[in-house]
This record gives sequence, structure tokens and C-alpha cells, in this order.
Amino acid sequence: MKPHPIEHADASDEVRAVFDDIKATRNVPDVNNFWKYLANDPATLKRTWASLKEVMAPGALDPVVKEMIYLAVSVTNNCGYCIASHHAGAEKAGMTPAMFAELMAVVGMANETNRLVNGYRVPIDPAFDR
Amino acid sequence: MKPHPIEHADASDEVRAVFDDIKATRNVPDVNNFWKYLANDPATLKRTWASLKEVMAPGALDPVVKEMIYLAVSVTNNCGYCIASHHAGAEKAGMTPAMFAELMAVVGMANETNRLVNGYRVPIDPAFDR
Amino acid sequence: MKPHPIEHADASDEVRAVFDDIKATRNVPDVNNFWKYLANDPATLKRTWASLKEVMAPGALDPVVKEMIYLAVSVTNNCGYCIASHHAGAEKAGMTPAMFAELMAVVGMANETNRLVNGYRVPIDPAFDR
Amino acid sequence: MKPHPIEHADASDEVRAVFDDIKATRNVPDVNNFWKYLANDPATLKRTWASLKEVMAPGALDPVVKEMIYLAVSVTNNCGYCIASHHAGAEKAGMTPAMFAELMAVVGMANETNRLVNGYRVPIDPAFDR
Amino acid sequence: MKPHPIEHADASDEVRAVFDDIKATRNVPDVNNFWKYLANDPATLKRTWASLKEVMAPGALDPVVKEMIYLAVSVTNNCGYCIASHHAGAEKAGMTPAMFAELMAVVGMANETNRLVNGYRVPIDPAFDR
Amino acid sequence: MKPHPIEHADASDEVRAVFDDIKATRNVPDVNNFWKYLANDPATLKRTWASLKEVMAPGALDPVVKEMIYLAVSVTNNCGYCIASHHAGAEKAGMTPAMFAELMAVVGMANETNRLVNGYRVPIDPAFDR
Repeated sequence: MKPHPIEHADASDEVRAVFDDIKATRNVPDVNNFWKYLANDPATLKRTWASLKEVMAPGALDPVVKEMIYLAVSVTNNCGYCIASHHAGAEKAGMTPAMFAELMAVVGMANETNRLVNGYRVPIDPAFDR
Repeated sequence: MKPHPIEHADASDEVRAVFDDIKATRNVPDVNNFWKYLANDPATLKRTWASLKEVMAPGALDPVVKEMIYLAVSVTNNCGYCIASHHAGAEKAGMTPAMFAELMAVVGMANETNRLVNGYRVPIDPAFDR
Repeated sequence: MKPHPIEHADASDEVRAVFDDIKATRNVPDVNNFWKYLANDPATLKRTWASLKEVMAPGALDPVVKEMIYLAVSVTNNCGYCIASHHAGAEKAGMTPAMFAELMAVVGMANETNRLVNGYRVPIDPAFDR
Repeated sequence: MKPHPIEHADASDEVRAVFDDIKATRNVPDVNNFWKYLANDPATLKRTWASLKEVMAPGALDPVVKEMIYLAVSVTNNCGYCIASHHAGAEKAGMTPAMFAELMAVVGMANETNRLVNGYRVPIDPAFDR
Repeated sequence: MKPHPIEHADASDEVRAVFDDIKATRNVPDVNNFWKYLANDPATLKRTWASLKEVMAPGALDPVVKEMIYLAVSVTNNCGYCIASHHAGAEKAGMTPAMFAELMAVVGMANETNRLVNGYRVPIDPAFDR
Repeated sequence: MKPHPIEHADASDEVRAVFDDIKATRNVPDVNNFWKYLANDPATLKRTWASLKEVMAPGALDPVVKEMIYLAVSVTNNCGYCIASHHAGAEKAGMTPAMFAELMAVVGMANETNRLVNGYRVPIDPAFDR
């Protein structure tokens, strides 16, 4: 059977505690589908949320930069859900349409030149290997 | 026969003009291997350099952010040359070890959650689809 | 024109023979869409079914393990059809929700650490290279 | 500058504590290169080890099955280091040459049929979507 | 907010000029969705169209071969839109059902043997490295 | 233990028969490393050779086109061995440097526009979905 979402009302105490922390941390009325599906495995739900909370917190990089990197990876991997949710997340963190346009241009070029490098079998310059 | 690099001294006028523009734009004494190999196809060399110059110029995003996005894509695709060259490029543009560490943490998490989404077949929340 | 499925009633004798062997081997009343689309190329239909029948037969690995490996690859590649069909196949072969949850956790971690390795440019330990 | 490994002798107390737990858990005299490179970011080292320890522990799936799934993903993504280290890990957990051969055959077929599905644009059978 | 298409009637002069060149070059009454979405970033629209026009023009390779290579890459990357649009493009350039069938068979085999090579860690033959 | 190659002199009769057919079909004095490594699993060796022989035979597509498609996929997936061996194979089948240059340009553009499509979330035009 296809995985199905677990709503707050049907969640165990363990799952509900994670849901409540997500809602409080992000100041949202409900968690998004990703968490409702992960709730089928409370250990993975807990671990993934704890990791994401730590990794996406402001640090040496701005939250908007982190969200844009997340989006760049998701676009490269073609994860439709992730593209939609991190596009929204990046906008919430301050990504303007002009920033999105430049992000996409860079992601496109990187995917192109990665393959040119592969096909031309370019060896690493000694200067880049130190 | 394996593609081989074309050095400045052996390059046609057309190729040399591109090499010289790369050197002037980046203020480097020689172009890196990527360009020497692309020089086997002057049309692709010219087009790729013109595109890259336009895309990587400062704009709505800082150059260091653009280089980090380039690195995030290259790490996701496992392009060894690209990882080495854009790591160097990002550092030159200001990426500190702390910024690199956070970049890698985000790229790792994104690659993980992209697959959790795929496997759990999570449908897009209506709020992300507007 | 988009590829379209070929139903049993409209199939050539050559295609029908493959369909019948799939139905008999799997004890199902009809073949699933994958085979109906592949039937547009009888040579590929025949070759793919013969290969799959050989590869997925019980051997040194249990059928449920083979189906879970198939699912792990499909999740990594984000093939929606393949995820759905091999999730069903794995369940039929005995995958429980707890086994699915652990499978997904491993697939997620592997996709994450694969990229950490790429980005940190970790050289192979001599002990792993013998 | 290229990331470099951090050896036990040069590690901070925080890093050393993780290294010591890896050595004790796996009963090995030293940690492998992956951990020495991750040690450049103690937070990611700690989080990744804690996650991996939880995910790879025996549960509904045997350790050897988990290691083979890890290997299947790493082969699909072409992460050379990960292929080498998890091949070794799977063998330590009991993978025989016959099991490896079948694993590879399944991974190969899955990568092939994933693309046949993409190219033929096969819609999900209703039976797989419940 | 989700990216949205820009129609000819609502386009700036700069965008309209690109749209008109696409329509004239391809002899079509309207541009396809790809261009309408790219129009959100006129610089990327212009650069991408100029590049594509140059790259896809007849040269040492026939247009139908170029479209089939485009399709092979899109199938490997599982880009649904690209598969649909380049399947149509290849047919317009002369791809028959028999050619499509062989293309898919090659793409499938290549994706399979790429992973067999990864997993068996096959070193490059000296004859291929010259 | 790392997989190792099996040479003709050490091969079983079953493996030797496949090696001999490869040598005769391709008119080469020895098989390349790929087959020597696959020989660790005679069933996969036999099945893969039989499939490849069938798929790569001249048909609706020229052998050089098939080899170039193989190379396009291998470059997209960054399989170093496969890039080297199919570059050699394509040259043997008639690929000139100009054809290689155009092939690479198409592969690069396809990988770029595949991601622009993903990021801009472009819906399939009805005309491409028939």
C-alpha cells in the first residue's frame, strides 16, 4: 500500500511532539506534507527534523542562501515536491524573482559544464588540487 | 583519440581571443584546463565563455553565492574537476571554511530529503503550488 | 506521437507469448503497463522480460531483498512508475512497513553521505582498495 | 584549499569523542578517511555519525541487507569512495561473491528499466497507486 | 509564487523579439511553454535561445540525430517535459517508431552497463586512454 | 575484496565461449576490461553480451549513432570508463572530431535545459502529449 499522511489528530505523542516543534519553530499553523508522510517512521521523522533544524539555522550562511542551495540541489535532482517547497521556503526567506532567475541560470550552466568536463575528460589543474 | 588540451601558443586567433578575454576578466596568467580542452571546439568555447561570463557576473546574487551554488550542483553530480575548480573559485570569492562546511551540510541534507520525498511519494501541498 | 500501450487482444503472436509467460510466471490476470508499452518494440520486450526473469529469480538473495534493492535504485533515480510498481512488488514479496521505513532511511543516508564524500574529496582508504 | 583529513592526534576533544565511539562501535583500530575529512566540521561529523549509527543498526532489516542497499545507491550515483567502503562493509557483514553478483545484476536492470519507463512515458497502473 | 508563463501579448519588446525569432526559425504559430516560462528572465531566454539555435543547427550531425541525443539525455535525467518535447522534435526531424525503439534500447543498456562498470570498479584499458 | 579481472587463460569454458564470441564479433585480439570484470558473474556476462550484441547491431540507426548515444548517456552519468570506451567505439564506427564536438554541445545544452525546465516547473504543452 502506498504511504499515506498522518495528521496531527491521529499522531502518536512522539510524532505530535515533533509536529509541534516544527510548527513553533517555523511559526506555521500546520506541518507540510513531507512531515506527515515521514511520520510513518517516527525515528526518521525525529532524526530528519533534528538534522534539518540544525543545518538550516542561521550561521555562516544566510537562511536565504541555504534555501537557494537546497533549491539548486532539488532542481538538479528533479524532485518536484522539493522544488515547490524550497521555492516557497526561499521566497519566505527573502529570495526575489531576480535572485531566483540568477539562481536558475547558474544551476543550468553548472549542469551543462559538468557534462562538458566529463566528455572532454579534463584533468584537474594542479592549482585546484592543493 | 582522447581529447587533448590546446595551449595558448598553439591556438588559432579565434581561440586566443577567448583565452585572452578569460585571462583579462579573471586576472590570471593562464586559463585553466577546462578552457584548453573546450578549445577543441572553438564555437563551444566561445559560446560557453560568453554564457558563463554573463551568468557569473555580480547581479542580484553575490559572486560567492553563485560559486557556492555551482559547487552544490557539481557535488550533487559528482564532477570531480568541477568540484575542485569551483571550490577554488568560491574561496577566491570569499568562501570561508565555515561557509563551506555549512554548504556541504545543506547539500547533504537536500540529497537525503529529495529521496525521502521520492520514496514516500509525497504530494505537493496546495500552498506550494500557487 | 506519444507511445501508447498494446493490449493483449491487439498484440502480435510474438508479443502475446511474452505477455502469457509474464502472467504465468507472476500468476497475475494481466501484465502491468510497463510491458504494454514495451510491446511497441517486441525485441526489447522479449529481451527485457528474459533478463528480468533471470535476474529477479530467487538465488543467493531473497526475492524481497531484490525488490527492495530495485526500489532503492528507483527512489535514487526518482522514477515514479518504478517506485510505485516495485513498492507493490516488494510488499508482495514480504516487505513490511517497518522494513520499508528502514529501507528509506538507508537510501536517504546513502544519498547524503555520497555527496559529503564528493564535496570533501575523500580519498579511498588503502584497506578498501584491495 | 582542498579539504584535508584530521587525525586522532590532532583532533579536538569533541571530534575525538566521536572518533572513539566509531572505533568502539565498529571494533576498528582507526576511523576511515570519511570521518577524518568530516571532522573539519564537528557538527556535521557528530550529526552524521549519530544518524548513521541509528540507521545502520540491526532492526527489521539485516545489517548485510542494509550495507547492500547502501552499495546499490552508491553504485547508482557513482561515488567511488562509497562503493569501495560499502563493498568492504557489506563483505564484513556477510555478503558473499554470489550475493554481490546478484546485487549488481539487480542494480543494472533497475537502472535500465527506470529509463525505459521514462522514455516510454508509462503511466502508473491504478493497482500500484493505492 | 510559482513561475508562470508569459504570453506573446504580455511580453516586453525584448522578449517578443526572441519569441518572433523562434517562431520564424521553427515555422510555428506560437512558442512552446519552455520559452514562455524562461521569458521571466529575458537574459536567460535570449542566451538560451541563441545557444540552442547555434547548437541544434545542421552541421556534422543531422538534426534528427541531435534531437535523438537530446532525448537520450532527457530520458536519462527523467525530465518529463523534455522527453515529451524532444520526442515531438525528433519525430518532426524524421525519427520513425523503429528509430525510437532502438534509441530507447541503447539508452537502457547504457544506463545499465554504466552501473555495472561502477560496481565492478573497472579500470580504463590503456588503449582507451590515449 | 575488490573485484578483479578474469583473463582468457583462467576463464571457465562458459566464460571463454563469451570472450571468443566478443573477439570474433568485434575482430579484436582480446576483450576489454569490462568483460574481464563481468566474468566474475558468468550469467551476467552472458546476458549482457547477448543484449549488447542485439542492441548495438545495425538496424534503423547507424552503428556510429548508437555509439554516440551510448557516449551521451555515459557523459550525463559521468561514468569515466564508459566515456573512454565508447569514445573509442564511436571513433571506430566513424565519429570525426567535428561530430564529437557537436555531440558534446548537444549533451551540454540538454543537461542545462533539463534543469531550467525543472526549476521553472514548465507544464507539458498539449501538442506534445498526444
